[in-house]
Amino acid sequence: MIMEELRVKRIKEGTVIDHIKPGKALKVLRILGITEDHEHIVSIVMNVPSKKLGKKDIVKLENVFLDKDTVNKIALISPRATINIVKEYKVIEKYVVEPPEEIVGIVRCQNPRCITNSNEPVKPKFKVISKDPITIRCHYCSRIMSEEEIEKNII
Amino acid sequence: MIMEELRVKRIKEGTVIDHIKPGKALKVLRILGITEDHEHIVSIVMNVPSKKLGKKDIVKLENVFLDKDTVNKIALISPRATINIVKEYKVIEKYVVEPPEEIVGIVRCQNPRCITNSNEPVKPKFKVISKDPITIRCHYCSRIMSEEEIEKNII
Repeated sequence: MIMEELRVKRIKEGTVIDHIKPGKALKVLRILGITEDHEHIVSIVMNVPSKKLGKKDIVKLENVFLDKDTVNKIALISPRATINIVKEYKVIEKYVVEPPEEIVGIVRCQNPRCITNSNEPVKPKFKVISKDPITIRCHYCSRIMSEEEIEKNII
Repeated sequence: MIMEELRVKRIKEGTVIDHIKPGKALKVLRILGITEDHEHIVSIVMNVPSKKLGKKDIVKLENVFLDKDTVNKIALISPRATINIVKEYKVIEKYVVEPPEEIVGIVRCQNPRCITNSNEPVKPKFKVISKDPITIRCHYCSRIMSEEEIEKNII
């Protein structure tokens, strides 16, 4: 077993998000809505050695199962992240994240004059127009945003 | 060895912050200024079972040593947290956090009319007037803030 696998204990039931870009674990939690009110055990490691990525982050959520559309939002900041669904200490499903077709309420539009940046009660909404590299277009003002811009504007 | 001690791997050199109030680990990172640009390994567990507290959070910072005044800021949100300084896998120093005399730039003043909430370049600054329960007084407007109020206003 390689070193980074030993760093955090195995979980019995839940979701392991692996191969997160180094440093992005905290943003992943924010995207998934895991805050200080969360009741279950959460383990996070940042900057552990990774053969694939040099360094990576890992998030383990005990007793939490997320729908694919929710986890796929992680693709916005970490396109190579992998999801492992664990039951009785075994990985029963594994897949690489993929951005959803539409992104609502996670990213702020970079255009300061966009209606979603006014005081109107309008949630920012984007269509994903390219998955790799990721590019999105605002539903309201058509502003195009790149991966780097998206990352800076995660809400 | 009890279960929660196994959950995150031992560290070789660095600082372990234990007995953090459940859910507060992410705020602890913010207080210490550990962000996504941090280069060293960080491990965080939230809501693990604790004999003393029922549940607790733990933060392990590899290769990071913080001065006492910095770690003591943690007392603002988690007064029973303990600090373990680790060298060569051994805890060489251990203490319970204690709030510093003065708190600068970590807590926002709850008084909306305080100068620190205007556009003036004035950092919020408080004197700690009671340590348990923690109570602080704004240097500029004399507003008194309780533990609960402090927690809501961590920057």
